[in-house]
Amino acid sequence: MNGAFMTAEMNEQPAMLARILAESDSRLAEVVRALRARPPRFVLFIARGTSDHAALYAKYLVETRLGLAAGLASPSTMTVYDSHPDLRDVLCIAVSQSGGSPDLLEPLIRARAGGAMTLAVTNAPASPLAQAAEFHLDILAGPERAVAATKTYTAELLTLYLLVECLTSGGAAPAYLPARAAEVLALEGEIEGLARRYRFAEQLVVTARGYNYATARETALKLMETSYLVANAFSGADLLHGPMAMIHRGFPVLAIVPPGPGAAALQPVLQRLKEIGADTLAVGDAQAARLGTVGLTLPDLGPEALSPILAILPMQQFAFHLARQRGLDPDEPRGLQKVTETW
Amino acid sequence: MNGAFMTAEMNEQPAMLARILAESDSRLAEVVRALRARPPRFVLFIARGTSDHAALYAKYLVETRLGLAAGLASPSTMTVYDSHPDLRDVLCIAVSQSGGSPDLLEPLIRARAGGAMTLAVTNAPASPLAQAAEFHLDILAGPERAVAATKTYTAELLTLYLLVECLTSGGAAPAYLPARAAEVLALEGEIEGLARRYRFAEQLVVTARGYNYATARETALKLMETSYLVANAFSGADLLHGPMAMIHRGFPVLAIVPPGPGAAALQPVLQRLKEIGADTLAVGDAQAARLGTVGLTLPDLGPEALSPILAILPMQQFAFHLARQRGLDPDEPRGLQKVTETW
Repeated sequence: MNGAFMTAEMNEQPAMLARILAESDSRLAEVVRALRARPPRFVLFIARGTSDHAALYAKYLVETRLGLAAGLASPSTMTVYDSHPDLRDVLCIAVSQSGGSPDLLEPLIRARAGGAMTLAVTNAPASPLAQAAEFHLDILAGPERAVAATKTYTAELLTLYLLVECLTSGGAAPAYLPARAAEVLALEGEIEGLARRYRFAEQLVVTARGYNYATARETALKLMETSYLVANAFSGADLLHGPMAMIHRGFPVLAIVPPGPGAAALQPVLQRLKEIGADTLAVGDAQAARLGTVGLTLPDLGPEALSPILAILPMQQFAFHLARQRGLDPDEPRGLQKVTETW
Repeated sequence: MNGAFMTAEMNEQPAMLARILAESDSRLAEVVRALRARPPRFVLFIARGTSDHAALYAKYLVETRLGLAAGLASPSTMTVYDSHPDLRDVLCIAVSQSGGSPDLLEPLIRARAGGAMTLAVTNAPASPLAQAAEFHLDILAGPERAVAATKTYTAELLTLYLLVECLTSGGAAPAYLPARAAEVLALEGEIEGLARRYRFAEQLVVTARGYNYATARETALKLMETSYLVANAFSGADLLHGPMAMIHRGFPVLAIVPPGPGAAALQPVLQRLKEIGADTLAVGDAQAARLGTVGLTLPDLGPEALSPILAILPMQQFAFHLARQRGLDPDEPRGLQKVTETW
């Protein structure tokens, strides 16, 4: 069947999240001990593609929950311009499913040489990236065969969330996640129907605010790589700074608004979109769903800081079904390879 | 005339660059002295929209020339999620034309309270942002009346470049810039002709690598806000990680490739685009221009680290002329205000 790998991997997510939760204490103990002994002053993420969106989510967690400055590295400053930065007191976290991208490995090696504490978060403990880092966290997603990453994204999100929570001595582990993920995935029939509406869309803007800005970025990427829809993701604040001008009456917009301060901050954007007459699909609770031209009501996603792990699930299905309806095989994105080798 | 403000401000850029160069030593002395006395360990930028692209350029400079880790702040972690980060040893640079955006002011105030050395880079010394920061650099662009920022972008780039160069004890000031900028702007007739070709384009991908990734981002924003073309900017490396799948034969791509290591790193991307049969407009030296379906040959732009100041000029003109040819007034982008108030 078309898209069998992607389907299987989307549906593995509840069991995978349960596995990550069950094994988190033992996996995290060593790196948490080291981070407590040598607390970092800054956190630098190295990632590309889907993993870069997981890093973006984690950046919000680091800034908000740890109260530290954080940055997403521009790998080319090391790989193309040959810089050797001074990274003492920096925690450098490289996020990569395969652990095999040369343009992540070289920056990680330089970060370690530059004094950073290095942590690789991968799905491949034997990979060059995992081996090169001082510490490694296995995201426990199991083998990934689909080209479009789904389960490895949510595995990265949860692993990074648990790491940050351990450092803040946080609350209880979010035991509700696996069941809630299954509940969200069960909306598939409704999402397939929604996707039909976008059969002939040529472009789409995806917007969100705060923690779910990562969800907007990842949704746009999934749409581009599986259904070839030209999707542009903006934080709500950035959308108002210019790109809003291109939104005309009927322009398709996807707004991801799980409840919380992020959704509250997105209200002026939704209001603007309504005034313009944009065609907005609002994804969130029942109240948020009513703010769109069409709505998708999700079950309670729990605390906003964890909602990106659940909010992406229907968006993965949306990209999958849109691709299918366009006669495309989501497992065979035109011209993509499983591991991207850039420099 | 339609677009009179934007035209005037684009054409002011050579004289403005000369003014910034002439006054740089005296303007920079105080902040450079302070930075030498209290060298930062990490640099955090706070900006939105066009100024965020100037910050992105400066992030590459900081990583490459200063060898420090740098990050672009997510303002919402402070304004929406109320974090109070520990920013001792951090240099926090807020970049804003107006200095009036509340969602930049609040993070700057918190950064200062959190121990950061704060620097505002604005076009408005009396603005709240300039007043709230410990140090201020005036970008000397003169009053900006166009909604689409042009001269203030290049003024921010040059000001940030000069700041970083002062800290590296760098070389001579780039005295060639104003004349070269005038030379580039003189290509306007050719660019107007090129823009005609895109009259009915509905979408466009803009790509570049390294320092000029900021140019790609800013080009996409100019196109979205003036001509309403749905423009998506990707670093060449990110384009290969997924979005390349949506590029089909004839898909319009704009590749910005001034000579240097960034252009060399973009070669595999240009090669892929050629194989796919994308319709690529290659902007760079004569050799780069030949790699596209169509090409725009620029004069020698000098060292790559400075090329973004010049490479954006024809792209501003391109956005301007495309808007005009679509019957739009570049000075009246639909629904945009001069100062965006987000939170």
